[in-house]
Amino acid sequence: MTDMPIDPSRIESDNAKRNPDLEADYAALGDQLDRRGISIDAIVQAVRGFKVAVPSWGVGTGGTRFARFPGPGEPRGIMEKLDDCAVIQQLGRATPSVSLHIPWDRTDPAALKEKAQGLGLTFDAMNSNTFQDHPDDPKQPLSYKYGSLSHADKAVRTQAIEHNLEVIEFGQAIGSTAITVWIGDGSNFPGQVDLARSFERYLESAKAIYRALPEDWRLFTEHKMYEPAFYASVVQDWGTNLLIAQELGTKAFCLVDLGHHAPNVNIEQIVSRLIFAEKLGGFHFNDSKYGDDDLDAGSIDPFRLFLVFNELVEAGDALSRLHPAHMIDQSHNVTDPIESLIRSADEIRRAYAQALLVDRAALRGFQDENDPLMASECLKRAFRTDVSPILAKARSMDGGAIDPIATYRASGYRNRIAEQRPAAAGSRSGIV
Amino acid sequence: MTDMPIDPSRIESDNAKRNPDLEADYAALGDQLDRRGISIDAIVQAVRGFKVAVPSWGVGTGGTRFARFPGPGEPRGIMEKLDDCAVIQQLGRATPSVSLHIPWDRTDPAALKEKAQGLGLTFDAMNSNTFQDHPDDPKQPLSYKYGSLSHADKAVRTQAIEHNLEVIEFGQAIGSTAITVWIGDGSNFPGQVDLARSFERYLESAKAIYRALPEDWRLFTEHKMYEPAFYASVVQDWGTNLLIAQELGTKAFCLVDLGHHAPNVNIEQIVSRLIFAEKLGGFHFNDSKYGDDDLDAGSIDPFRLFLVFNELVEAGDALSRLHPAHMIDQSHNVTDPIESLIRSADEIRRAYAQALLVDRAALRGFQDENDPLMASECLKRAFRTDVSPILAKARSMDGGAIDPIATYRASGYRNRIAEQRPAAAGSRSGIV
Amino acid sequence: MTDMPIDPSRIESDNAKRNPDLEADYAALGDQLDRRGISIDAIVQAVRGFKVAVPSWGVGTGGTRFARFPGPGEPRGIMEKLDDCAVIQQLGRATPSVSLHIPWDRTDPAALKEKAQGLGLTFDAMNSNTFQDHPDDPKQPLSYKYGSLSHADKAVRTQAIEHNLEVIEFGQAIGSTAITVWIGDGSNFPGQVDLARSFERYLESAKAIYRALPEDWRLFTEHKMYEPAFYASVVQDWGTNLLIAQELGTKAFCLVDLGHHAPNVNIEQIVSRLIFAEKLGGFHFNDSKYGDDDLDAGSIDPFRLFLVFNELVEAGDALSRLHPAHMIDQSHNVTDPIESLIRSADEIRRAYAQALLVDRAALRGFQDENDPLMASECLKRAFRTDVSPILAKARSMDGGAIDPIATYRASGYRNRIAEQRPAAAGSRSGIV
Amino acid sequence: MTDMPIDPSRIESDNAKRNPDLEADYAALGDQLDRRGISIDAIVQAVRGFKVAVPSWGVGTGGTRFARFPGPGEPRGIMEKLDDCAVIQQLGRATPSVSLHIPWDRTDPAALKEKAQGLGLTFDAMNSNTFQDHPDDPKQPLSYKYGSLSHADKAVRTQAIEHNLEVIEFGQAIGSTAITVWIGDGSNFPGQVDLARSFERYLESAKAIYRALPEDWRLFTEHKMYEPAFYASVVQDWGTNLLIAQELGTKAFCLVDLGHHAPNVNIEQIVSRLIFAEKLGGFHFNDSKYGDDDLDAGSIDPFRLFLVFNELVEAGDALSRLHPAHMIDQSHNVTDPIESLIRSADEIRRAYAQALLVDRAALRGFQDENDPLMASECLKRAFRTDVSPILAKARSMDGGAIDPIATYRASGYRNRIAEQRPAAAGSRSGIV
Repeated sequence: MTDMPIDPSRIESDNAKRNPDLEADYAALGDQLDRRGISIDAIVQAVRGFKVAVPSWGVGTGGTRFARFPGPGEPRGIMEKLDDCAVIQQLGRATPSVSLHIPWDRTDPAALKEKAQGLGLTFDAMNSNTFQDHPDDPKQPLSYKYGSLSHADKAVRTQAIEHNLEVIEFGQAIGSTAITVWIGDGSNFPGQVDLARSFERYLESAKAIYRALPEDWRLFTEHKMYEPAFYASVVQDWGTNLLIAQELGTKAFCLVDLGHHAPNVNIEQIVSRLIFAEKLGGFHFNDSKYGDDDLDAGSIDPFRLFLVFNELVEAGDALSRLHPAHMIDQSHNVTDPIESLIRSADEIRRAYAQALLVDRAALRGFQDENDPLMASECLKRAFRTDVSPILAKARSMDGGAIDPIATYRASGYRNRIAEQRPAAAGSRSGIV
Repeated sequence: MTDMPIDPSRIESDNAKRNPDLEADYAALGDQLDRRGISIDAIVQAVRGFKVAVPSWGVGTGGTRFARFPGPGEPRGIMEKLDDCAVIQQLGRATPSVSLHIPWDRTDPAALKEKAQGLGLTFDAMNSNTFQDHPDDPKQPLSYKYGSLSHADKAVRTQAIEHNLEVIEFGQAIGSTAITVWIGDGSNFPGQVDLARSFERYLESAKAIYRALPEDWRLFTEHKMYEPAFYASVVQDWGTNLLIAQELGTKAFCLVDLGHHAPNVNIEQIVSRLIFAEKLGGFHFNDSKYGDDDLDAGSIDPFRLFLVFNELVEAGDALSRLHPAHMIDQSHNVTDPIESLIRSADEIRRAYAQALLVDRAALRGFQDENDPLMASECLKRAFRTDVSPILAKARSMDGGAIDPIATYRASGYRNRIAEQRPAAAGSRSGIV
Repeated sequence: MTDMPIDPSRIESDNAKRNPDLEADYAALGDQLDRRGISIDAIVQAVRGFKVAVPSWGVGTGGTRFARFPGPGEPRGIMEKLDDCAVIQQLGRATPSVSLHIPWDRTDPAALKEKAQGLGLTFDAMNSNTFQDHPDDPKQPLSYKYGSLSHADKAVRTQAIEHNLEVIEFGQAIGSTAITVWIGDGSNFPGQVDLARSFERYLESAKAIYRALPEDWRLFTEHKMYEPAFYASVVQDWGTNLLIAQELGTKAFCLVDLGHHAPNVNIEQIVSRLIFAEKLGGFHFNDSKYGDDDLDAGSIDPFRLFLVFNELVEAGDALSRLHPAHMIDQSHNVTDPIESLIRSADEIRRAYAQALLVDRAALRGFQDENDPLMASECLKRAFRTDVSPILAKARSMDGGAIDPIATYRASGYRNRIAEQRPAAAGSRSGIV
Repeated sequence: MTDMPIDPSRIESDNAKRNPDLEADYAALGDQLDRRGISIDAIVQAVRGFKVAVPSWGVGTGGTRFARFPGPGEPRGIMEKLDDCAVIQQLGRATPSVSLHIPWDRTDPAALKEKAQGLGLTFDAMNSNTFQDHPDDPKQPLSYKYGSLSHADKAVRTQAIEHNLEVIEFGQAIGSTAITVWIGDGSNFPGQVDLARSFERYLESAKAIYRALPEDWRLFTEHKMYEPAFYASVVQDWGTNLLIAQELGTKAFCLVDLGHHAPNVNIEQIVSRLIFAEKLGGFHFNDSKYGDDDLDAGSIDPFRLFLVFNELVEAGDALSRLHPAHMIDQSHNVTDPIESLIRSADEIRRAYAQALLVDRAALRGFQDENDPLMASECLKRAFRTDVSPILAKARSMDGGAIDPIATYRASGYRNRIAEQRPAAAGSRSGIV
């Protein structure tokens, strides 16, 4: 892997400095887990096997409708995005695959595949885009201002369907096996669209896409309560998402973005219900306090993230049948996106590792005996365990950095690309 | 109907006083609607045909966990509750049926039916109760503290199932054809119950009830986000409710209580989706600002109530197949329950009448042409119309009061029953 | 006023067609109000006196972080924005003043003033902008990515203060007497900023602006729960806003934007409290279902808007001392902004007119006698009254249109400016 | 302290068994903290000094408006409640004081004081109760159905004031130095009360109480968004609470109950603002997911609890001037209340200990350099640290149990009191 953006010797030397402390902490944690009947090495192995995809759009600085404040070295195209993704994977070793967004990442598929292989990356689920207009795309002359797959005008629906088919075709060329369909369709005012008819039109369009799905592909539909639509979104919640997946068929699944729900909603329970219905397709991980804030996973409510993973671990066999996709979907407005993605992937692994520590036999006993306090403590004991040494060990065993943020900063990568990638003019303003 | 609790001559004389103004307002509104191409008489006829059931428990003063402040003349049993329901129907003419709650209303079914017939009342959906313990009920010795239909212990589940079967049997004896199953099952802490296993147990229990359902009955399951469970309710939202109704079969439907959703949720869209899924069973009408506040229908957000009815009217044929049940479910903590139920039924009819005024051809045109402003105004124009003369006309044509609250107060009914029904001792305290 | 953008004869002829129906409806409503002891003419006079400012930024199409879909004829600068504002005022007669936003609207003040005078417009509160970077503004070279008035770096704070002083100076030149300071300062992650120190820095900066405030000016500070900051906004709620106004002094007041609160919050109560504290500065009117949706006033929850005006009318004398500013702040993403602003101003007047119809003596009686049902009905009776004829009468008496949307559409104004104002290139994309 | 309810030798023997593991974990953690420049012993000392009061009403099983499911051995009066509180303190060593509620805990003050002394307990803030009627209290014949301190009727206000004065007098007799005033006053319907006048009446009443406050006492007022009032609570949020404390004077402070806010509200920021305003009086600790769920502290969102303590530790000197009161206020519906209070106090101490681990110099550096990622990680690193050995050490050094729940269960206390305290008849039903 000679294309690696960070000099491997830097990682090695940094790790050498940090290894003694890691070994001490790892040994102490190992002792403690041993007393709890848990093999720390087994947990490390499980963590090493856990991967999460990064979104190509996540390595650029995000923004709000008010403003976007780019940082130095913003990637100017998918090839530079892949370089940044490679840094994330090289240091963190949790993110070997990238999720693309068409038309943003449209390019020659063969070149893309070659570039990715050189960086040790593969491609996860594809994403279509019919929530923006694409004035430069000759295949998408019609506007999505009033919807796409559910638009009142059949011509717009057809254009949106064709776009999705193109995305699938592109995905096939680069080895992807899934497409995620998120639309912004909806309405801002009561009456603007007929809630029933627009849903029926959406289903008709989704069925057309589904029919074109290759045999070994999965179709993920994603629900979201609001934004960009502020009165009613066509695919507003998991109930509607479930109806869609049921209508489409056995290759259709529901994607859960942690930030797309109403206030106070119990997300881990939705995960459990979708597993029951055999329709859990995967996740868009992030964290949020208010709406679809798209903050770094685990940064606002780490216990909630743990509880989601507790459901996944608890599901056991049912889950292995579903093998849900793990993807990050975040907007990095104030941090270096590479750093945010490294630590977010780590936080997601942290929640997974903690969930693996739950004493499930004891938990089941507390549940069957109606002992809420001990059941609650059983989960919290696992959550409280500082599994940082496990995560660091997993990284270092796979060639990553014990302290990936520190090593990244010391590498000077950001400064280097800032010189290579001049800032685009006029990119600072937002929309109000 | 010689048993009528209010002297009919009072209604007549009160109406006689108020009729000239009503006729003036009715004529003016009729002229205006005429210009909009709407026959006011047709609307009146439709409103007269619209009925909503009152809950037997609604005629007593409600409370919170902090306190309950009873008023004078609280009904001491189902027979007195029926008397109060008869007042509501006599004056408002929108509520000819009553929804019962077992074991609260358990009594001799034959006597109950006779009493109701004498008052011109019938019985709507039955309600079972496995969210409270019933120490006086020899058939329910086990506690529901840790659940009922989803309880970890099969014996408790069996008891809860048997209770529901008894409620169905009771309902058959008095002419009901539906049962509403709302449970408080859930958990207060993560880990307390296994989210998946408790749902599976619930389904198993619900299927046992469903199997015992008479051929012409419907089973309504009701979702609720929280309270009494404060971490996860087993039937927490319409998505789970939909799964239940799908698992059970063609006689199982989802009941929508307007106050049982997460903040900001678009309820009318849920109604639309349940119609699509052919699983809308009916409503528990009320209004709320925060949680399951159980306030008088239309008192907090009347436009939302209108938008629900807009979906019902829009659905047309689909709805007539489903013929959803209309029921009020409110807690009257600070008002005279009789007054609150009279005006709530009136507000529900108001929303229905307004929804009938929507120019649906024009609306469809605005929708198909992507004219959100005119579509929005089209709904708001109907909502803005003061249909009070229509409601009063409908009441008076059926023998009810033009101003039912005024006539009720003038009748002295509350004072009369306050003398007949002494306050129960110790009933003032709540739970903290 | 020869500069009027719509030919006055069109308004006259359109009104002539619609006047007979208006007169009929007006007479019928007048009769009804007469019976309630209310003079319809007095209400019309009060409505004619009620004005609300339009925001210069509101006449352009808004968007979300995902996309912006401009319409035809987007104004390309403040002069064209004023033309559009003049249409709104000419047809609706409720919006004689415009609120400017610097630097968006920066131009020669004298020319601006002259242009406005020709159109019969004046200027309301000025708005500063330190939530975006201004790469073209030589006076603002430093980035606001990490805050402005509360930034950790004194140089950035100084720049932001200077910008506000410039806005005041600009405002003085065109006859404004108030400045609204809304900042996006805050943090996306716990720990990012010190909650206490950043607030203290904000206060220090705000005091510097306050000291420069001309004698006859008012300073409005605006709170907002979230967006663009997603963990903690520096001025997050009315409590903090109140502290600010108290710290600053007698010319400092709190601005209430209806969409800037937490879910379920009782906004009219905040209005009441700010009146008590003598710190209510005014409003940014709009409507919302989820967050700061910036939808058309009264389009989602018209009863809530009425309840806000109920507080204003109830406050009586206290309010006339405060004379709060009325401004619209909306984002018109899917409608013609001119149409949305015309009808929003009308909806705001509608709420005001309805609030004037409340029988305040009766209401006070019901309140003092603890008669919640009648008190509730007292408000709802006023709200239910369709005051459309009053609003139309007020418009037509002042030279506006009886049906302003219809007259606007018939005028062909949008098509005309679409030809004169070619679409800007590349303006279609958003931020993700 | 021979009155101790748990045999001290049991604690000793249990601790002896658990001590080796504790010492191992403590040493490992000490090493790790040492590397971070932190003395584990200093943290233990700080934790030992941290105390939180338990509420007398918390040792009984709570409920909802739907039902209450008592457990065995419910305390039948304040003396038995004190016994239970003594168990909590004996095992956990974090809760030496008890907060009383009058009239629930009314008894002979001298006897009460003596009983408490024998158990090693003291009394924290007193609580008055004007949110329930007290039919057995001859001094409170008037009903609070329509309010207390803000009631429209002066006689009711006077009664409520007098009750508070009595509570103060009672508190003086037992050594308390603070009173917490929480009222349920508010309205369920728009219009029911005048928002302004009811607040003015409240203030007038609160001033009367304040005037009677002994010199060395503090008055805590507590805000709450909703419940029992479902449209508008008189003291609905911290902004109103601040106005009250400002109006009353230097001995008046705001109490923050973690569950009394709108959804998504940033509570730690409110804490910071109240410290700024020098009006933070203290806390009612608990946790919640939906509303005022009153769940065990730290059981739903432990990171939020940590962030509150992060503000307290950060405030440093400012806080020591305010010395806010720490109190638990929870409703234990499904757990043994003694167990819930032991672990809740422990969770509160945990959050405090974690907050002490924050590297404040580093944090300040990250903040000043606008390094959100490292600032965020700085807090999370402290939060992730499993401080359980510190908490156990603090307990055992003070004579408490290393594993207090296990020791409590092994002690057989609950079974013992269940025999001594027969269940009250009819106590199982709730309110609907």
